[in-house]
Amino acid sequence: MHYNKITSELVTELINIVGRSNVIEDPEKLETYAGDEVPEAEWKHLPEVVVKPRDVQQTAEIIKMANREMIPVTPRGAGTGLAAGAVPMLGGIVLSVENMNRILEIDRENLFMVVEPGVTTGEVQQRAWAEGYFYAGDPCSADSSFIGGNVATNAGGNKAVKYGTTSRYIYGLEIVTPTGEITTLGGKCVKSSTGYDLVHLMVGSEGTLGIVTKVYLKLLPRPLHNAVLLVPFEDMQTAIDVVPKIMTNGGIIPTSIEFMDQLCIKSAEGFLDRPLPFSDAGAHIIIEVEAYTKSQLEADYETIGTICLENDGLDVFVGDNRASQEKIWKARRHLAEALRVTSPVYCMEDIVVPVNKIPAVLAEINRIAEKYSIKIPCFGHAGDGNIHATLLKENMDDATWHAVKEKVLDEIYTITHASGGNLSGEHGIGAKRVKAMAKFTDPVQLKMIAAIKKALDPNLILNPDKVIDLA
Amino acid sequence: MHYNKITSELVTELINIVGRSNVIEDPEKLETYAGDEVPEAEWKHLPEVVVKPRDVQQTAEIIKMANREMIPVTPRGAGTGLAAGAVPMLGGIVLSVENMNRILEIDRENLFMVVEPGVTTGEVQQRAWAEGYFYAGDPCSADSSFIGGNVATNAGGNKAVKYGTTSRYIYGLEIVTPTGEITTLGGKCVKSSTGYDLVHLMVGSEGTLGIVTKVYLKLLPRPLHNAVLLVPFEDMQTAIDVVPKIMTNGGIIPTSIEFMDQLCIKSAEGFLDRPLPFSDAGAHIIIEVEAYTKSQLEADYETIGTICLENDGLDVFVGDNRASQEKIWKARRHLAEALRVTSPVYCMEDIVVPVNKIPAVLAEINRIAEKYSIKIPCFGHAGDGNIHATLLKENMDDATWHAVKEKVLDEIYTITHASGGNLSGEHGIGAKRVKAMAKFTDPVQLKMIAAIKKALDPNLILNPDKVIDLA
Repeated sequence: MHYNKITSELVTELINIVGRSNVIEDPEKLETYAGDEVPEAEWKHLPEVVVKPRDVQQTAEIIKMANREMIPVTPRGAGTGLAAGAVPMLGGIVLSVENMNRILEIDRENLFMVVEPGVTTGEVQQRAWAEGYFYAGDPCSADSSFIGGNVATNAGGNKAVKYGTTSRYIYGLEIVTPTGEITTLGGKCVKSSTGYDLVHLMVGSEGTLGIVTKVYLKLLPRPLHNAVLLVPFEDMQTAIDVVPKIMTNGGIIPTSIEFMDQLCIKSAEGFLDRPLPFSDAGAHIIIEVEAYTKSQLEADYETIGTICLENDGLDVFVGDNRASQEKIWKARRHLAEALRVTSPVYCMEDIVVPVNKIPAVLAEINRIAEKYSIKIPCFGHAGDGNIHATLLKENMDDATWHAVKEKVLDEIYTITHASGGNLSGEHGIGAKRVKAMAKFTDPVQLKMIAAIKKALDPNLILNPDKVIDLA
Repeated sequence: MHYNKITSELVTELINIVGRSNVIEDPEKLETYAGDEVPEAEWKHLPEVVVKPRDVQQTAEIIKMANREMIPVTPRGAGTGLAAGAVPMLGGIVLSVENMNRILEIDRENLFMVVEPGVTTGEVQQRAWAEGYFYAGDPCSADSSFIGGNVATNAGGNKAVKYGTTSRYIYGLEIVTPTGEITTLGGKCVKSSTGYDLVHLMVGSEGTLGIVTKVYLKLLPRPLHNAVLLVPFEDMQTAIDVVPKIMTNGGIIPTSIEFMDQLCIKSAEGFLDRPLPFSDAGAHIIIEVEAYTKSQLEADYETIGTICLENDGLDVFVGDNRASQEKIWKARRHLAEALRVTSPVYCMEDIVVPVNKIPAVLAEINRIAEKYSIKIPCFGHAGDGNIHATLLKENMDDATWHAVKEKVLDEIYTITHASGGNLSGEHGIGAKRVKAMAKFTDPVQLKMIAAIKKALDPNLILNPDKVIDLA
């Protein structure tokens, strides 16, 4: 596909659409929009121009112009992505949704919140809670990430075991299509068998099939009580074996089941500068449970504690108040930061495998780490098989790092694929994993994805270099 | 699109693929495959041939042949559909999945059941329960419908309020694509942000985008205790107003919240030949709650009962054992049968609206019924806004019935659409609602659906006359 460059005439046209103050050309200011949270320089690229529409009409006009002029458009939320999905690798326009940041409606009769894409996830959570409801989406980046970005990547997070990922709470989306048309998919109906499920085709499509301008979020009753358990285990296999038992023997689906491996435990200990209990254990599991009544909560965490101890848990630490819960969560929450301190350049992966494959895959990752003399601490979501294997550059020179990283990722993906797993559980493919996507996806499915992309975006205007290589 | 007829050479080829005994040509036997449970003659059509492949390879060979020869293929489950989705309106091949009827695996570590599409939903439910798990999908047709059909229509049912529709439990699908290729979408990973969500694009696509040959179903812990409440209300508005209060004030998401209007109550009373309590009430609401512990169950149904009484429920009848529960459910369960006795020819609709719109939409339906002198009893799923308005032919002559039905449906759909609703909540569009789909769907979305269909099925082989008019 041959794209054109932004001309001064087109900048004027953009200014006419969104206003002078919502068009950025200054190279220094463009810098902010050149990357997301992937730390490596290869995943940064300056846009030619940034536009910040304030509503769906302006968004549609921009996309129509881009189609007419053959300019690639990269939609952007808060830039907290972890797969270079919002990075304008081909230049062109970055379309930032930051000005569409209003909570439009709290619908108390149907239990919906309607928001614009530039509202932060944290604001959605807080507003829902303040109004007497609960929004279940909870990516680790909630404080800063936009709900629009959560939709784009089908964000997961710590609560996905019980509540599922973002997708489950999205019932309607107003979008601008890749050709600049406006439509609302779904809405406030809680079920539908009326044509294809376009809503959930959009969710997770990383801005390649449409730009979300309004989101219909389902609200739940507030889970009023919660408790957090920290359970150390001798090794990862023993730890992971307990996961299905909690659900079937206990009849409980916890909100979170997180894991940290030995390297992570030590790293968190160093970062927090305080000893963690059982810091020589092979695995720490953090389990959070929520309930509407205190008695149900107590019954649930006692059941879980008993199951853990009966299945070789070394001990069970219960956090049943805010302070003790924070203490348990702190190690897990600060892990990314702790690893960043150890190694400012790193590569955080997001593979997902069937839950019972976690120990075998982690063992393989350890083997690979040894083979290439690289540290790969692993943490993540044990309840849903999502492993954030994090390659640390540490003292390697750049050339070695690139060479080693390429080989290590290829081996990790190979093992993931062989285990019935996928490249990404919640971060997405973005630009970062497009090559891997091509290598590790069944060609039949690559063809399906490409066919859908081309059918809905014939000029390949929207985020054309992401998810799949269409060249 | 120009389709060809089945020739004797092609029949021979089909016999070579699936064996003599799995090809049906005998017109009398073909009759069985001419319709589903839509009672009217206009929604019956004889296939030219029925084939019953035993595995995915045979299925793929049939689809390849159909593409080569330009023969339409209508996939068929148990034929319990309510929208003529499995009716071969253009003739050609009916591909019945009835021979692919094995439960392939119970995965206790990842909590999955893997089944072929021709297993009945009831068998899935029973096997899951016997193994210590719970399969949450529960369409009213569970005893006879196939899981493959549930996937095709994204079947709902009585438990969708709490558990969602079939879609939520489908994590993987082995399919044959419309061009005859085999691939497995998703699998046993419980989350994924790896390319487009093709799994849920397939679910609800009514056999127009692929033929499902294997289904990965998520299992849950068994809810061991349940209770059923019958609550009569003076009128429908008062009844529906209580629904969000149960969820937010009570913090409880019931398994079911069903409603019956006055006509339905009387019809059920007549059919069961016994008086129902408060049979002159404007609305009966049936609420089912499930819990893992008996104490939680009791707390939940007491809370719900209190909320109902505080909000003008006329009384609360609690079924806390099998017999009393059956008694409450019986009226609701036998409604379709009861209406059929009243009028063997009828037209059961499946509109879905935001929950708070139910009373207004029902009032409008009553107005329409009066205007056209037709009875339209309404029942359905109050918890998810799904209204089975059922037009009764009774003593009308055929011509009048057709004319009246057309006008009544048009008015009902107009109101549904204006209320933010959809044509179908769980039955699908099939052939029956294709015209309405064209009229009541945003043209942008019709274009998107058509584009996806054509992209994945360039020869328009799979169920080409369903969901959307591509002519």
